[in-house]
Amino acid sequence: MPQFLNLMPLSDAMQVYKENLPPFVPETETVQTVEALQRVLAKNIVSLEALPPFTRSAVDGYAVIAADTFGASESLPAYLKIVGEVPMGNEPAFSIVRGETAVIHTGGMLPEGTEAVVMVEDTQLSDQSEVEIMRAVAAGDNTIKAGEDVSPGEEVLPAGMSLRPADIAGLIALGKIDVEVNLKPRIGIISSGDEIIPPDQKPHMGQVRDINSYSLSVLVQQHGGVPVRYGIVADTAEALEKSLRQAYDECDAVIITAGSSASTRDLTAEVVGQLGQPGVLVHGVRIRPGKPTILAVCDGKPIIGLPGNPVSALVISNLFVVPTIEYLLGVKVVRPVPTVKAQLSTNVSSQTGREDYVPVKLRCTDDGFMADPIFFKSNMIFTLAQADGLMYIPADAAGLPPGEMLEIVML
Amino acid sequence: MPQFLNLMPLSDAMQVYKENLPPFVPETETVQTVEALQRVLAKNIVSLEALPPFTRSAVDGYAVIAADTFGASESLPAYLKIVGEVPMGNEPAFSIVRGETAVIHTGGMLPEGTEAVVMVEDTQLSDQSEVEIMRAVAAGDNTIKAGEDVSPGEEVLPAGMSLRPADIAGLIALGKIDVEVNLKPRIGIISSGDEIIPPDQKPHMGQVRDINSYSLSVLVQQHGGVPVRYGIVADTAEALEKSLRQAYDECDAVIITAGSSASTRDLTAEVVGQLGQPGVLVHGVRIRPGKPTILAVCDGKPIIGLPGNPVSALVISNLFVVPTIEYLLGVKVVRPVPTVKAQLSTNVSSQTGREDYVPVKLRCTDDGFMADPIFFKSNMIFTLAQADGLMYIPADAAGLPPGEMLEIVML
Repeated sequence: MPQFLNLMPLSDAMQVYKENLPPFVPETETVQTVEALQRVLAKNIVSLEALPPFTRSAVDGYAVIAADTFGASESLPAYLKIVGEVPMGNEPAFSIVRGETAVIHTGGMLPEGTEAVVMVEDTQLSDQSEVEIMRAVAAGDNTIKAGEDVSPGEEVLPAGMSLRPADIAGLIALGKIDVEVNLKPRIGIISSGDEIIPPDQKPHMGQVRDINSYSLSVLVQQHGGVPVRYGIVADTAEALEKSLRQAYDECDAVIITAGSSASTRDLTAEVVGQLGQPGVLVHGVRIRPGKPTILAVCDGKPIIGLPGNPVSALVISNLFVVPTIEYLLGVKVVRPVPTVKAQLSTNVSSQTGREDYVPVKLRCTDDGFMADPIFFKSNMIFTLAQADGLMYIPADAAGLPPGEMLEIVML
Repeated sequence: MPQFLNLMPLSDAMQVYKENLPPFVPETETVQTVEALQRVLAKNIVSLEALPPFTRSAVDGYAVIAADTFGASESLPAYLKIVGEVPMGNEPAFSIVRGETAVIHTGGMLPEGTEAVVMVEDTQLSDQSEVEIMRAVAAGDNTIKAGEDVSPGEEVLPAGMSLRPADIAGLIALGKIDVEVNLKPRIGIISSGDEIIPPDQKPHMGQVRDINSYSLSVLVQQHGGVPVRYGIVADTAEALEKSLRQAYDECDAVIITAGSSASTRDLTAEVVGQLGQPGVLVHGVRIRPGKPTILAVCDGKPIIGLPGNPVSALVISNLFVVPTIEYLLGVKVVRPVPTVKAQLSTNVSSQTGREDYVPVKLRCTDDGFMADPIFFKSNMIFTLAQADGLMYIPADAAGLPPGEMLEIVML
């Protein structure tokens, strides 16, 4: 039976894979901005207008000429004549001269002649037509100047950014109710293995249901791709080649979960390698789970072979499948991955020279979160469903002791 | 002009709000499991079968009777006769007696009589019909026993769990290709303010575009709700009441972003209070942004009044809107919120007694991430679009000094 003779360190595997992926320019489509969550901007967004379009009050109060308030204090207030109230949603029909003021609400447009706003808390009404100003303000105080948020011609959002609610708010603020985004990549998914049957069937002895086609579909959707399932393929060179060729022709990338035995994995690598140049770049990575991973680029198209074991396939997808989707999506703005800080509850052993990802369950204690590692065997999918996240053991550690502070990536 | 006289601490506000929300049992629907990402399980999932359904090999190797390997070592191997190879996807047609073994692949079904597997790495082929076993194994070694992952009758996933890829994998493993989930709640969204216009229009002087209807729609979608937009309503009691009443009747909860001035906010609170009992529970919270928040429960239905300022509305939605959606979704399994650890780059001042959320931009350095606070003015939406996340300043701090370690919640 064949062995893995040349396991590659993870960083080397990622590097050789990325170096062989050609520059990719996704096609684009225009969608409603309100439906564009998590879509990736195709072009830089440049504002054609100023935001806000006029100088607005940031508070409820009185619009003033700053010089009229100089020296004003609680003991020695300035007295200003109220000549009007700024209507919301309209330009004030009046202007202000020295000695005058107008009532203004938050968001209201400053009347001509005024340059600041005194907060209502710093005033006192003498009578309906006069207000005592008890604090001096400088020009610009308590206002948002026209163009202070965005000026015309300013680039506000870069191409390659995955849109979040705040970005969508920005697009809407500029009146951009449609937005050009990169197409979602089509990711072909193939399950191989003679023991695998569709999940709606009852397995006979020796058979198990196809999990990977579905869990990987969900993962692809979650990260902004369109999964295309090609079903289950028998472990023969002809069947694998036919299915892989079709998925390769119809999709932007292909994931195949190889049968779990070593000979089947080698068969998969052989067939993948024939799809194009340079072919298989990585076959075997020094990580657990995920050792039998295949990374290939065939005439510019990424092909990923994942372990048949559904726990491994899902855990390791974060390392190989997610970056591939991001590459095809044209993601250029990369944000840090948030984690949960937790203390390891018990010793976890590992092999020096190998990177490990271990599922953990998080437990809330008075001292913060404790991470209980879940020791998993291949194919026990509910070990993963019970977990909250994954802990990482670096290659230079022979394990981690209890009490170690971890950064858990949530599942 | 009216003031906030009774600002409530955030924890008190959340408590009185939650205490007044009645137990909620969502209606349910059945969906395809592969489309059920982020949907919430309506019922506990109980397995009717064992997983795996038969004892499987966890490695490539030789199926053995453990006693045949006792004392075996590299220097003194045990010799076993190879009587067959376990076919993938089928029950082996043979059984094994003392002195015999069979080739088995990862995932293969153990032949009758065998109780362990010797890894291929620990064997050497003498000839085609005999193998040297160089390591002793105990019963169960390198196997996954029938039912070891799940036994029949076992509860595997609890009602109220929001489904992740690993949970979907578990459901598929059990053959559950459909799943009963809680209905997505309908969240009504109303924008009020005489200065607000639809985003596809060009604002005249004094007007600004409606951002909140859209940014909150996206936020509601993101967290598993269905947004229902009721558009822009004028700041009059009649208009507000008509619009609020319709949204209240048609939705499971209503969010209204009040006009930004104090008088408008008070009008909103007054109208909300008339929708049902107990009515407005909180009007004014000791946080920044979000001070003018209104929390109400009217005859069992949650109504949330958010600040008109779109930066505040979005930042503060995580505190009030997201838990409301989770309540309506029937979420019972709450997982920790992951964050990014970062060092504060500069002093940020705050007011003792008030909790603050400040947008930050994260910068990658040799010492980890630095958080640069973005000092924002109300309504400057691109201050939020430039941010990666939010930092938190607790009520007992008058600010935070440079170097402080923060846990940044990503936007």
